[in-house]
Amino acid sequence: MKKKTVGTGEKLTVFDCTVRDGGLINKWQFSDTMVRNVFEAVNASGVEYMEIGYRASEKMFSPEEYGPWRFSKDEKIREIIGETPLNVKLGVMVDIGRVESDDLMPADESPLSFVRVATYLKDMPKAISLANLIADKGYESFINIMAISTVNDYDLAKGLKDIEEQTNVTAVSIVDSYGALMADNVKHLVATFKESLTSKHVGFHAHNNMQLGFANTITALDSGATFCDATINGIGRAAGNCPLELLLNYLNDPKYNLDPVFQVLQKVFIDLRNEIEWGYLLPYMITGMLNEHPRVAIALRNSAEKDNCGDFFRQLTTPECYNN
Amino acid sequence: MKKKTVGTGEKLTVFDCTVRDGGLINKWQFSDTMVRNVFEAVNASGVEYMEIGYRASEKMFSPEEYGPWRFSKDEKIREIIGETPLNVKLGVMVDIGRVESDDLMPADESPLSFVRVATYLKDMPKAISLANLIADKGYESFINIMAISTVNDYDLAKGLKDIEEQTNVTAVSIVDSYGALMADNVKHLVATFKESLTSKHVGFHAHNNMQLGFANTITALDSGATFCDATINGIGRAAGNCPLELLLNYLNDPKYNLDPVFQVLQKVFIDLRNEIEWGYLLPYMITGMLNEHPRVAIALRNSAEKDNCGDFFRQLTTPECYNN
Repeated sequence: MKKKTVGTGEKLTVFDCTVRDGGLINKWQFSDTMVRNVFEAVNASGVEYMEIGYRASEKMFSPEEYGPWRFSKDEKIREIIGETPLNVKLGVMVDIGRVESDDLMPADESPLSFVRVATYLKDMPKAISLANLIADKGYESFINIMAISTVNDYDLAKGLKDIEEQTNVTAVSIVDSYGALMADNVKHLVATFKESLTSKHVGFHAHNNMQLGFANTITALDSGATFCDATINGIGRAAGNCPLELLLNYLNDPKYNLDPVFQVLQKVFIDLRNEIEWGYLLPYMITGMLNEHPRVAIALRNSAEKDNCGDFFRQLTTPECYNN
Repeated sequence: MKKKTVGTGEKLTVFDCTVRDGGLINKWQFSDTMVRNVFEAVNASGVEYMEIGYRASEKMFSPEEYGPWRFSKDEKIREIIGETPLNVKLGVMVDIGRVESDDLMPADESPLSFVRVATYLKDMPKAISLANLIADKGYESFINIMAISTVNDYDLAKGLKDIEEQTNVTAVSIVDSYGALMADNVKHLVATFKESLTSKHVGFHAHNNMQLGFANTITALDSGATFCDATINGIGRAAGNCPLELLLNYLNDPKYNLDPVFQVLQKVFIDLRNEIEWGYLLPYMITGMLNEHPRVAIALRNSAEKDNCGDFFRQLTTPECYNN
């Protein structure tokens, strides 16, 4: 039925975060074959950006515990690319305080072309400093503001003003970490971001706790966001993300090709779903509706009481839980 | 986050279709315990209407093949209700040509208070005749127009005019049988229905093929629909429906109580999901995006190739499939 149509003058840009966000489920312990299959599919799909993992310091995370895409070293990325001509821009995400300047080579010596900084609003001065370090090294830079459903408009306006004035990031993304936003919240946030960020793009990163990952992404684009995140099959921690297959079908732009996405869905994701869990599950819906981090729901899903959503609902909504 | 708020003067009404629509998956072979648990939960939740099954003639369907909720006999319904005081209005759905006048007792001799007619637009004269028979017997009557994504506005306006002029149904519902509608389609359809149906309410019945079941229901309500359908856990044929738990949380009306819904989710639906399948699965997404009946996807899910979504995508989108 009616889809987004091209030719309206607006340029929409898609970020694939399949490996980076999916790795939050299994500490980035994906096989090289899995990552190569995903890279080949995204590279053939016409998607503009692929965030292949986090870049982090090995001084802070043990390579015994965490898989390669916690670190996403340049040489590992070159191994994955092999001889494939690059259509997609490759990049990584970095967290404040978990990466050091030495972890990033100058961009012209790296297979990466962009780096996104993930931050909470309260850490904005550190995020801006890190985004500028990234830009100084020659990478395209971005900032993602996490847990956006917990910030107030006054503090947000201040943080956005600082980004606008002090950085040259391409886009700043609204991240619905708790999967708590309804359509009206999305519209309000995109309007707020656009008002402050007169020289940057606005992006959106959805979570699917209330089956609104795809719908909220559409709302964000309709409201003026021009960058959006998605993952194949919606893979991502807890309830997961906006599914890339739904988004590309909706965007309906001839530059995108759905076939490689469906082929890798069949080849990789059917089996992967039997190994690790993500998607709409009732404990994640409950934390989403309460605007809470999914960590208590993740803990429940890893326990013997994993299916006791009725008990979990009562635990989280009974007043005495909060009156201490 | 922001939810629908009460007190705006609009009265929204929820239909639970858990047993009726869920039964499309397993030929209504639910145990009495399951149906009683669902009834008790819905009855305690504050939901206004519960469609407990289809009413159909035993001359047309074999009770050996079909479970009790294909027929939903008055005496069976009385067995389920037992001594429980009724808060919810109970009713059934009927299909054109699959029920006879004798299958419906006068309303004052039945535990049912409403009957909904499911019809395709092309069968509107029969649907109107059946709706009037239902009303004459003393039941509150409704019409649901199925496969709405396949009709044109000209024929639709004619059908709606006939309903407006020739019946006294309470509401007419838009049924997105193929799960193919995007938000803009929903807005357009609700506006079209409201324009023709000046003396009736407009309802909405979503399917979740593209993870838009809940989102499209919100869009319909925001556009002026006042009746909406939902099922516990989104149970329903193929990709399923708008989940009642998400809808009641969104409606945020103190008359609704989420606790009995979460208790029955834990008690009944966790196990049920291990027995029968519904929800967002890639073959259903593919038929939804192509605006097709899910029957080919249902057949795929019942075959050895159930997970071959890449092959299925190519089969349905390769031009030679259509050029014969």
